[in-house]
Amino acid sequence: MPNPETTILNVKGFKAVGIHAGLKKEQKLDMALIVSNANCVSAGVFTQNRLKAAPVTVSEEHLQIAGNRMRAVIVNTTCANAGTGAVGLENARIMARLTAQQLNCEPEQVFVMSTGVIGSHLPMAKIDAGIQELATRSDSDWKAAATAIMTTDTRPKVASVKVFSPHGEYTITGITKGAGMIAPNMATMLGVLVTDAVLTSEQAQQLLSKTATVSYNRIVVDGDTSTNDCVVLLANGSSGVSLRSDGDVLQFQQALNAVAIQLAQAVVRDGEGATKFITIDVRGAKTEADADQIAHTIASSALVKTAFYGNDANWGRIIAAAGRAGVEFDISNTSLAMAVGESLVDGDRGLILFENGTKARYNESDATAIIKQDSVYVTLDLGSGDAQAIVWTCDLSHEYVSVNADYRS
Amino acid sequence: MPNPETTILNVKGFKAVGIHAGLKKEQKLDMALIVSNANCVSAGVFTQNRLKAAPVTVSEEHLQIAGNRMRAVIVNTTCANAGTGAVGLENARIMARLTAQQLNCEPEQVFVMSTGVIGSHLPMAKIDAGIQELATRSDSDWKAAATAIMTTDTRPKVASVKVFSPHGEYTITGITKGAGMIAPNMATMLGVLVTDAVLTSEQAQQLLSKTATVSYNRIVVDGDTSTNDCVVLLANGSSGVSLRSDGDVLQFQQALNAVAIQLAQAVVRDGEGATKFITIDVRGAKTEADADQIAHTIASSALVKTAFYGNDANWGRIIAAAGRAGVEFDISNTSLAMAVGESLVDGDRGLILFENGTKARYNESDATAIIKQDSVYVTLDLGSGDAQAIVWTCDLSHEYVSVNADYRS
Repeated sequence: MPNPETTILNVKGFKAVGIHAGLKKEQKLDMALIVSNANCVSAGVFTQNRLKAAPVTVSEEHLQIAGNRMRAVIVNTTCANAGTGAVGLENARIMARLTAQQLNCEPEQVFVMSTGVIGSHLPMAKIDAGIQELATRSDSDWKAAATAIMTTDTRPKVASVKVFSPHGEYTITGITKGAGMIAPNMATMLGVLVTDAVLTSEQAQQLLSKTATVSYNRIVVDGDTSTNDCVVLLANGSSGVSLRSDGDVLQFQQALNAVAIQLAQAVVRDGEGATKFITIDVRGAKTEADADQIAHTIASSALVKTAFYGNDANWGRIIAAAGRAGVEFDISNTSLAMAVGESLVDGDRGLILFENGTKARYNESDATAIIKQDSVYVTLDLGSGDAQAIVWTCDLSHEYVSVNADYRS
Repeated sequence: MPNPETTILNVKGFKAVGIHAGLKKEQKLDMALIVSNANCVSAGVFTQNRLKAAPVTVSEEHLQIAGNRMRAVIVNTTCANAGTGAVGLENARIMARLTAQQLNCEPEQVFVMSTGVIGSHLPMAKIDAGIQELATRSDSDWKAAATAIMTTDTRPKVASVKVFSPHGEYTITGITKGAGMIAPNMATMLGVLVTDAVLTSEQAQQLLSKTATVSYNRIVVDGDTSTNDCVVLLANGSSGVSLRSDGDVLQFQQALNAVAIQLAQAVVRDGEGATKFITIDVRGAKTEADADQIAHTIASSALVKTAFYGNDANWGRIIAAAGRAGVEFDISNTSLAMAVGESLVDGDRGLILFENGTKARYNESDATAIIKQDSVYVTLDLGSGDAQAIVWTCDLSHEYVSVNADYRS
């Protein structure tokens, strides 16, 4: 599914570069560097997976040490440098050191990201040469950088927002990769968000953590979670615009959310083999955690996802998935509706398929007409409270199986 | 994948019948009756899904009322009678009443099971006629009964054991259906287990619950859980052999386990689109619950299952699934091995792919030679305790997607 058109805005003092370093076959871009000409206040959200890839460990360390003076993010594809033990950890440190040498900064000022196959070692000679070439580039090309971090993604993912604050203008631009192995409650995927606004360290981490919960943590492709998930925010202050009031902070939060939601939704649209963009809106729950748990369970269900792929408005599978989510609710108060699109128009939930614990009166052909569309909005109302959670997901197709059965071959 | 050859043994005083009642297209069998000529001590394990199908509710009620004098199990396919509200509940009660009329017993002495599409009402005229025809049959045919309860199953599932106890012989025979929507920690699928041994009510429930934890709750096809899962045990005492000592109980438990494990494994072999039988053996955990959680997470991972389908010994996905299972363990103590077969020969774990937090030294061609086989045994040793759990699962193929995309069409 194509993404909405988006304008990519450069951010003062940042350069983004993508090159071919010989990691991917053919001449595809496979290494990226995002670098600021001034120190950055930074923040990060990282995978919760017990098998944490070496670059994630190193990036977390560097954020601890140099969180208010980060300079760059170096990224490679094809090799995740995960499950690689002490050698992998050393290679991730070398990657930061080589980058720092080119940029005349300390290794701790560099975030390291890797994505690709788990369990093989980085080809360090190619990485070294790639870093040298990246550093020589003077032009900034966010699309090339976004392309260079792709694995099974079919399209680069970039989003930008220009913000007009009472104190002046600033810009936020972000890139993301991730098509499969996207799952709930994790930092999920690789993401680099940069801004020329002036942030404090505390603001940066709070803003990024909040943004993650409404964007990256709201998407499901296959329910698996990567060993390498990592999203970072770098603010170099080049605009001179700071966040002085609660209103300023809220304005930045909303802008950052907008960028990250656009990127996260682009991941779902580009989900491996995805043919549909599906919104699961669970409301009427006792708590947001309950709503979230049910929405994620529905979005991860293979039976639900294959029914969507088959254009089968099989609400039974959706209710059954909700029923096994481990949340207490009364099925006789529950209703389910489907509409076309990515949001509800005037709050209209569309065709009601299930209510009061039983099938509603509707024509199957009307339901089929909805589910055949590229975008379907499912509303499940539990009728037992005011809490709500929304998750975006895609269907499960033959193509998903093909992509993942043949990934390493 | 074919099942091992099995001999079906009749059980004294029980009759099993399967007929075509016009529910399925063509002339396929679609209703079954299992009936005892004497009252049975009974037990049941039922779905934990919040959307509990009407027949499950009714069967639970009947077990409460008449648990020590059950007589029969009536089963229909094509319609699950789930998400059908008050009408569905009444239809399930009518199904029991019609069966009881034919058998000259009380409605409460009848278990009711339905399986098929969620959300449509039972065709009661066909059900009524089917029950009448079932009652007229005098011959017992377990294979026909097992065939008549199938939905997407491709083969009937029957298993039998004859037990020679110090007090005489008795027999246990069981049938099961279920190819998709098979998931952890639930009663899972439909199952009817009968014996002519003499059991007390307490023995029956304890024996069946224990058996469920080592058989039906150890299998994963797609991680979804049915609204209709239900396994019942009926003991009519016709052999006159009772369980007098702890040794007698243990002997029965082992025999019941053997029957149920054979049936559960047959479900995995017949998993929708399955091409491989995969054993996930997690050991060295701090607690059995930890081992179980990790084994189920691995077995439910779409990425793990598609890698198996693609004959890709991608241990990274297995470790990554373990890493996101929500269990604390030290990756640097963890090792993973693969062998051919459904059990380990002399405890040999086979080829070690991962150890001490990193890739082990091995040839990819050796790993590929193992994973290409029909049966693969994966051992994940967490190195941090003595607890173990085993889960059986299958791969995720194009055929799975086809079966589930087109289920209702």
